[in-house]
Amino acid sequence: MSLLTVGSVAFDAIETPYGKTDKIVGGAGTFIALASSYFEKNQNIISVVGDDFPKDTLDDLNRRGIDTKGLQVKEGEKTFFWSGKYHNDMNSRDTLITELNVLENFDPLVPEEYQDSEYLMLGNLSPLVQSTVITRLNKRPKLIAMDTMNFWMDIAMGDLEKTISMVDLLIINDEEARQLSGEYSLVKAARLIRGMGPKILIIKKGEHGALLFVKDEVFFAPALPLEEVFDPTGAGDTFAGGFMGYIASTGDLSFENLKRAVIYGSAMASFCVEKFGTERLLDLKNEEISSRIERFVRIADFDMNVLVK
Amino acid sequence: MSLLTVGSVAFDAIETPYGKTDKIVGGAGTFIALASSYFEKNQNIISVVGDDFPKDTLDDLNRRGIDTKGLQVKEGEKTFFWSGKYHNDMNSRDTLITELNVLENFDPLVPEEYQDSEYLMLGNLSPLVQSTVITRLNKRPKLIAMDTMNFWMDIAMGDLEKTISMVDLLIINDEEARQLSGEYSLVKAARLIRGMGPKILIIKKGEHGALLFVKDEVFFAPALPLEEVFDPTGAGDTFAGGFMGYIASTGDLSFENLKRAVIYGSAMASFCVEKFGTERLLDLKNEEISSRIERFVRIADFDMNVLVK
Repeated sequence: MSLLTVGSVAFDAIETPYGKTDKIVGGAGTFIALASSYFEKNQNIISVVGDDFPKDTLDDLNRRGIDTKGLQVKEGEKTFFWSGKYHNDMNSRDTLITELNVLENFDPLVPEEYQDSEYLMLGNLSPLVQSTVITRLNKRPKLIAMDTMNFWMDIAMGDLEKTISMVDLLIINDEEARQLSGEYSLVKAARLIRGMGPKILIIKKGEHGALLFVKDEVFFAPALPLEEVFDPTGAGDTFAGGFMGYIASTGDLSFENLKRAVIYGSAMASFCVEKFGTERLLDLKNEEISSRIERFVRIADFDMNVLVK
Repeated sequence: MSLLTVGSVAFDAIETPYGKTDKIVGGAGTFIALASSYFEKNQNIISVVGDDFPKDTLDDLNRRGIDTKGLQVKEGEKTFFWSGKYHNDMNSRDTLITELNVLENFDPLVPEEYQDSEYLMLGNLSPLVQSTVITRLNKRPKLIAMDTMNFWMDIAMGDLEKTISMVDLLIINDEEARQLSGEYSLVKAARLIRGMGPKILIIKKGEHGALLFVKDEVFFAPALPLEEVFDPTGAGDTFAGGFMGYIASTGDLSFENLKRAVIYGSAMASFCVEKFGTERLLDLKNEEISSRIERFVRIADFDMNVLVK
């Protein structure tokens, strides 16, 4: 199988209660591609950076099997830059700087070699860029998934609704689901959002796990209770990457397998938050992933073998 | 086995986005005893009401097998009254009125017949009243559980710490766990709180489920994603009641059985929020409980039968 990721490859500068970074490599596309590379070996990425982007990082991506033919390098331009500071609870953050740079006029060209991609993950980006990629693919992938954020609901709701109507799976967080639907109840929100197009919906709830809605079924996925979250940046993208990597590698869209993919995504996200940026995703051992999965199985396991009296 | 519940039996007046009640019957003790009565048939309650309390409600309790010898009726005094209004998100509320009335000088007398109670549930009350009951029991119950709230942390932290040190199990919500420990991370909070005495800790997270900490184990219990929460009043008490009723009826304190008890507690709480006050807890059918339990099993079920590649 093969997975095509569309998403930003960027610089982040992050401040958390645990420390502070200079410009480090981030971006939704980077987190998604790295996380999914642990499952699906046939990886393509469409993105754009400036000539200030480190060659070493492209090598890191290539070393993880990610083809970067679709990653445009714009001479004389600068890479997208985001800077943010997390509050003490790690659940909220202030954006300090956003410099769109190369993303401002990003034209997502699809290399001929990517045309046969079987799975497509559209990371958080302008909904117009996301839908452009879909229309430029000659053949519809087996599953098209997308992420988005409040920002696009505020400034481009029409474009966003159009793009959402074109995808099979939407992956957003609880706050975004509430804003998108105008409903506080996530069950009601899920019904309205799936009415907008996506057959499958995942609502991420951070430390509270995730909800997967497929047909008439709901899956309540656990999260690992963590001692501490060092840096939450990219955790949502990493979830999406683990999820789509697992789906692409198995090619199985049954409810049972989608649930497994949610657990793999959650496990990958739990690694992501242990260090700044992508650091924890560059060199994970398969045994680390397996033992993390076992922890998910263990904390969520119960057996109602006794009947109600 | 037998369960002794200590907790308020009271009047509530509730306003939610769905409607408004006059004075209806509420109180932690009422919710706990009603919920636990579906599991453990040998039920005792220690509480106090005024002579304004409806005889019909005492009959309701007796009909559910709850012995009310320990429920003092104070002639010429008024029952505890609480009035509150929930915000649109149903996760926060304003207290409009609190009239302690009979609770102000509550002396929790233990009827001789209650001395052999094997399980003790101390509902949210003054920590001095809670500890008084423990010291008045001639024989220590097999499990002593307690609930509390922020209010007591604010005005009686010393008494509260002393009472907490005397119990086996503390059942509180996430906000309370954070305030009690001064730690935002629930894993760290749990460690500190268990250091205060209780071997077992349950942190309730409302729509996000619950965490059970026992020895080195953690269980992440799901919550049912609900279409709507009609009235959350008493949901936490109902959880505690379902939990303790199941524990008392099985007499099994293994981790596996404590997990089951959390699921039964969660199921009972999911009924409680469907109607105002105790209404939904007066006449549940065993089949309703069983099929609710099946829903918990189904939404949380996953099977990682495929190895990481």
